[in-house]
Amino acid sequence: MAEKKSRTMKKDCQVAFSPFEVSVEVPSGSNLLDAVKAANLPLKATCGGKGTCGDCVVRILSGSYHSKPSAALPDHLASQGYALSCQTTVKGNISVELPQFRELAIQSIVDSKFFREEKDKISGTYEMDPAVKTISLHVSAPTLDDNFSDLKRIERQLQKKLAAHIVSCEYPVLKKLARAVRKDKGKINIVISLSEGRAVIIDAVPPSEHKRLFGLACDIGTTTVALHLVDLQSGKIAATATSLNQQITCGEDIISRIVYSQKPGRLKKLQELIILTINNLIEKAVTTAQISTDEIYFGSFSGNTTMTHLFLSLDPRYIREEPYVPTLNQVPAVSARDLGLKMHPEARIHCSPAVGSYVGGDITAGLLCTPMLKDSKGISLFIDAGTNGELVVGNKDWLVTCACSAGPAFEGSGIKCGMPASEGAIEKIKMGKSGEIEYRAINGSKPRGVCGSGLVDLLAELFSNAYVDRSGKLKAGKGHKRIVETENGKGFLIVEEKDCFWGKDLVITENDIKNLIRTKGAVYSACSLLLKNVGLELDTIDSVYIAGGFGQHLNIENAVRIGLLPDIGRDKFHYIGNSSLLGAYLILISERNKELADATADNMTYIELNTEPDYMNEYTGALFLPHTNINLFPSVKKIFRA
Amino acid sequence: MAEKKSRTMKKDCQVAFSPFEVSVEVPSGSNLLDAVKAANLPLKATCGGKGTCGDCVVRILSGSYHSKPSAALPDHLASQGYALSCQTTVKGNISVELPQFRELAIQSIVDSKFFREEKDKISGTYEMDPAVKTISLHVSAPTLDDNFSDLKRIERQLQKKLAAHIVSCEYPVLKKLARAVRKDKGKINIVISLSEGRAVIIDAVPPSEHKRLFGLACDIGTTTVALHLVDLQSGKIAATATSLNQQITCGEDIISRIVYSQKPGRLKKLQELIILTINNLIEKAVTTAQISTDEIYFGSFSGNTTMTHLFLSLDPRYIREEPYVPTLNQVPAVSARDLGLKMHPEARIHCSPAVGSYVGGDITAGLLCTPMLKDSKGISLFIDAGTNGELVVGNKDWLVTCACSAGPAFEGSGIKCGMPASEGAIEKIKMGKSGEIEYRAINGSKPRGVCGSGLVDLLAELFSNAYVDRSGKLKAGKGHKRIVETENGKGFLIVEEKDCFWGKDLVITENDIKNLIRTKGAVYSACSLLLKNVGLELDTIDSVYIAGGFGQHLNIENAVRIGLLPDIGRDKFHYIGNSSLLGAYLILISERNKELADATADNMTYIELNTEPDYMNEYTGALFLPHTNINLFPSVKKIFRA
Repeated sequence: MAEKKSRTMKKDCQVAFSPFEVSVEVPSGSNLLDAVKAANLPLKATCGGKGTCGDCVVRILSGSYHSKPSAALPDHLASQGYALSCQTTVKGNISVELPQFRELAIQSIVDSKFFREEKDKISGTYEMDPAVKTISLHVSAPTLDDNFSDLKRIERQLQKKLAAHIVSCEYPVLKKLARAVRKDKGKINIVISLSEGRAVIIDAVPPSEHKRLFGLACDIGTTTVALHLVDLQSGKIAATATSLNQQITCGEDIISRIVYSQKPGRLKKLQELIILTINNLIEKAVTTAQISTDEIYFGSFSGNTTMTHLFLSLDPRYIREEPYVPTLNQVPAVSARDLGLKMHPEARIHCSPAVGSYVGGDITAGLLCTPMLKDSKGISLFIDAGTNGELVVGNKDWLVTCACSAGPAFEGSGIKCGMPASEGAIEKIKMGKSGEIEYRAINGSKPRGVCGSGLVDLLAELFSNAYVDRSGKLKAGKGHKRIVETENGKGFLIVEEKDCFWGKDLVITENDIKNLIRTKGAVYSACSLLLKNVGLELDTIDSVYIAGGFGQHLNIENAVRIGLLPDIGRDKFHYIGNSSLLGAYLILISERNKELADATADNMTYIELNTEPDYMNEYTGALFLPHTNINLFPSVKKIFRA
Repeated sequence: MAEKKSRTMKKDCQVAFSPFEVSVEVPSGSNLLDAVKAANLPLKATCGGKGTCGDCVVRILSGSYHSKPSAALPDHLASQGYALSCQTTVKGNISVELPQFRELAIQSIVDSKFFREEKDKISGTYEMDPAVKTISLHVSAPTLDDNFSDLKRIERQLQKKLAAHIVSCEYPVLKKLARAVRKDKGKINIVISLSEGRAVIIDAVPPSEHKRLFGLACDIGTTTVALHLVDLQSGKIAATATSLNQQITCGEDIISRIVYSQKPGRLKKLQELIILTINNLIEKAVTTAQISTDEIYFGSFSGNTTMTHLFLSLDPRYIREEPYVPTLNQVPAVSARDLGLKMHPEARIHCSPAVGSYVGGDITAGLLCTPMLKDSKGISLFIDAGTNGELVVGNKDWLVTCACSAGPAFEGSGIKCGMPASEGAIEKIKMGKSGEIEYRAINGSKPRGVCGSGLVDLLAELFSNAYVDRSGKLKAGKGHKRIVETENGKGFLIVEEKDCFWGKDLVITENDIKNLIRTKGAVYSACSLLLKNVGLELDTIDSVYIAGGFGQHLNIENAVRIGLLPDIGRDKFHYIGNSSLLGAYLILISERNKELADATADNMTYIELNTEPDYMNEYTGALFLPHTNINLFPSVKKIFRA
């Protein structure tokens, strides 16, 4: 009887979630929102499952389910398969899409305006000289008088071509050497990896078995992973792919992932998830480029220190505990086989070198995309404002860096109307004189939310048009129809329900505004403290390079207006986009860039803000628009005086 | 119906053979000799299965079978479970032992007289300085001011201790670093492998998790594999193990194994068999020494070029085809994990460097055990007479080498009364004036056959006592009762059936004698030609070092008498035993020995006898006792004249 009972209790419906590679089994009749929670997926449900907020909307792609109709879900969406997960009952195996993660804007270095226009000014070189290359040899046939071994005859030729490098050979290549060197009568293509004056043979291919040489440049972001498949002969980008970091199911920021990793088996799971994410992107890219994964011999990966640790399955625990010491900053040679990446098994994996626990390889890689490692004159500031904000100041001769916990507000997290830079995200906002709002959503489609650059515009416009005061409070007294009451308190109506994809008002609440202010305050105060530490004034900064996940269209004027960026000449600012990805690309194509990144990481001075007594004062001062001390923002002061 | 039939035809008896790790499935009612053949095991059956020769005797350890009684099998053996496999029917699962391979004499370098007495004269050093060692560090705890990564702090200390080596770290070690360096408050034992000025970290262990440092020295012989487990702190031998090379089921000599390897999947099988053989020996050794396989960090392996290729799964095909070019002579770094050896996964595997296809790492290792790489004055000759005979002549300043196909006669193969140096093998024979024979069998047990050193004695005594003429023919006319007729022709009775373990006459036939003469002729003519090639006379040789599988007691006088060794002063000869194993041990314990072996292999000149026009003449001349030209053997000539 007990057995029979347990059979009836069996979990018998599989719920698969895209774009995540996650599925859960639940008993038939389960609530879909509960299934989402069981799968540990990020989905808002502000009303707590009452069916009133409409946040938990998903799209059911296939399968058997029952959804109660809800006022919070317009008919046109319901007819397209959208449903509120809190109002949905699972009846069989179903396939569910979390739409806000569906169409991430492809992150490509070539889309970057900076890349197009300032290509020649950056520190990294574009001259092709990758650390992994193919050397074509013609090995003379052995004779009784010249009967050196196959390996020796190949080494002899290689050493001539490479000017006396020490040559070694990976074990799996040894096994194919005898055949490979005879197949085309001594003509053979040797794939080598160069490092520290040593050449390691990682493949040997007869020319008739045509194999090309490709590499990967990959930015491992906490939220998003972006990848370029690169022809290592020409440097051309053969394919590009972007997706969510599947680790997001284990926590949205690095701290929650570190916490998650501390239970048995979970560090391994986090590694599996990032490898899965990358392997899926590789699959997409090789399909586009029509190559085999076996032709990818080199991977250059950039990520923050925690992402790099999880990528390698290194315990990240001590990153979070004082004195914040990672296992490593520079990663020794690792092969694709070690990590289970879908590349040639002996492919070399390089991770951009980190400076410390909170200034990672993404920053070192990013610096390659600025002139900062090349120019001795002038002083530059590099700002990467993501979930974690990182700042670097200096030039070729010295560099000082610090990090701050900015929070993911500008990446669309923790803000009710926020979303990543994916389809339907408002990326630009302008407010007319009579309060009318102009906006542009990604792909020109009906707006679904606001991404980073849109939020900067929105906050700046609200402030400029006096909808919010300097502390971020909405001025209720203004009586404008756009000031509305929501169940989360007072808010500002950005898009009316009829124009919104979700068929409901798109509102930014006062709490959201406070959140944005905290984020910009964290970045600005870190910047201010960093400069103080090196005894510099703001006006000594000649250039500011801004990287990060704002989207393609950060409005610098607005970023200054809200006090995110310092009030200096606008021509000094350069938005460089995903510099972690571009840096990974630069490291991929040139050994010189690789060495420059290593030297940069080694020579940077790291300042730990967590233990700076002044930080709290600076931060509190920055929690105003644009700042408690308006004199720090003369251009803003002028406007308000006018 | 068809299905039912196939069910009746099902192979349903498992026949397991020891000491091989081989079993076959055969239908109930099968003949056991057929099962042995199906398993491809070496078992003689001279009479072709008639039950008359008694060669195919095995011992049934357990299981169900039926054996017909046979005159060729004495009752006392039948009662102990011995049976003629050709007269035995398999009735169920059975376990069968091939007794001639059961108790191989343990091969140990410490048993060698040469090792005991001449230890200090050899070229290799006994000073402990292995390429893999443990470095104990005390890494200071990180602080906010000294917050280098764990790896960096360890590297910093290592570089101090090792005087500026480049330090790298294997990927699996990275994963345990954070925990290991904190467990004992910064005290940590780092296991490093040194090579070409680089130190690679292969393990990191907190001292409280007590782990010792062991290594393996292993001789991979074509027939026998011998292994020492060595404490790498003291150099002490903790355990010794010897067994048959399980590859013997795929062919008894290197050429038949190369031929065997050429069909799909078989190269892999050969590698699996040698790894299995070694892993079984490791299991025995670690049980004896009471250590964990995880404490073995370094393996030094010596074998001929074909054995090394099969150990690494490298296609040996071109070893056999002119111009006889192997894939490699010096093996790049390989790990235990690459090969599936039961050691620490990151353990370093070193293979003694070969000179060419027919002068392998066993010879280079062997030379370390002679003074030849140390002394500049005088000229030495090194002879390894196994299945393949290898010779080296020269001194510290120059070395010339060659190889010849001697055949396995002195290893007990291809000779009806021959056997390996295992229990019951006659290893010493002396003939009295009136034709009586004295002998000593290994372990003092009843004789079962004759091993190499016994065969040399036997041939010499037969010749000295005029039972054979100079061409190897038995002198029938002598009418002695020991000259007998066998089904394989005329023979000489060594041991009567009543005294023989097998209960049958132990006889050496004329064919066997011819076989021995061909083997000694191949070695002598190679020696002669080698000396001619370098323009040297025999009497310029100051020392002769003899290695190989004769057993412990090669009688030099007798070896000269039959023309195996040149007729020079007897005090010049040194029997050094298994120098491949001792050489592997020397390479294991000292990096200097490793480098010396590498340099030796690089600098030796190899002469290919296969293509020397004079070789056939020399060989034919040597097919007499002691030689066509008796003047080459003045001491023998004198005896016969006397």
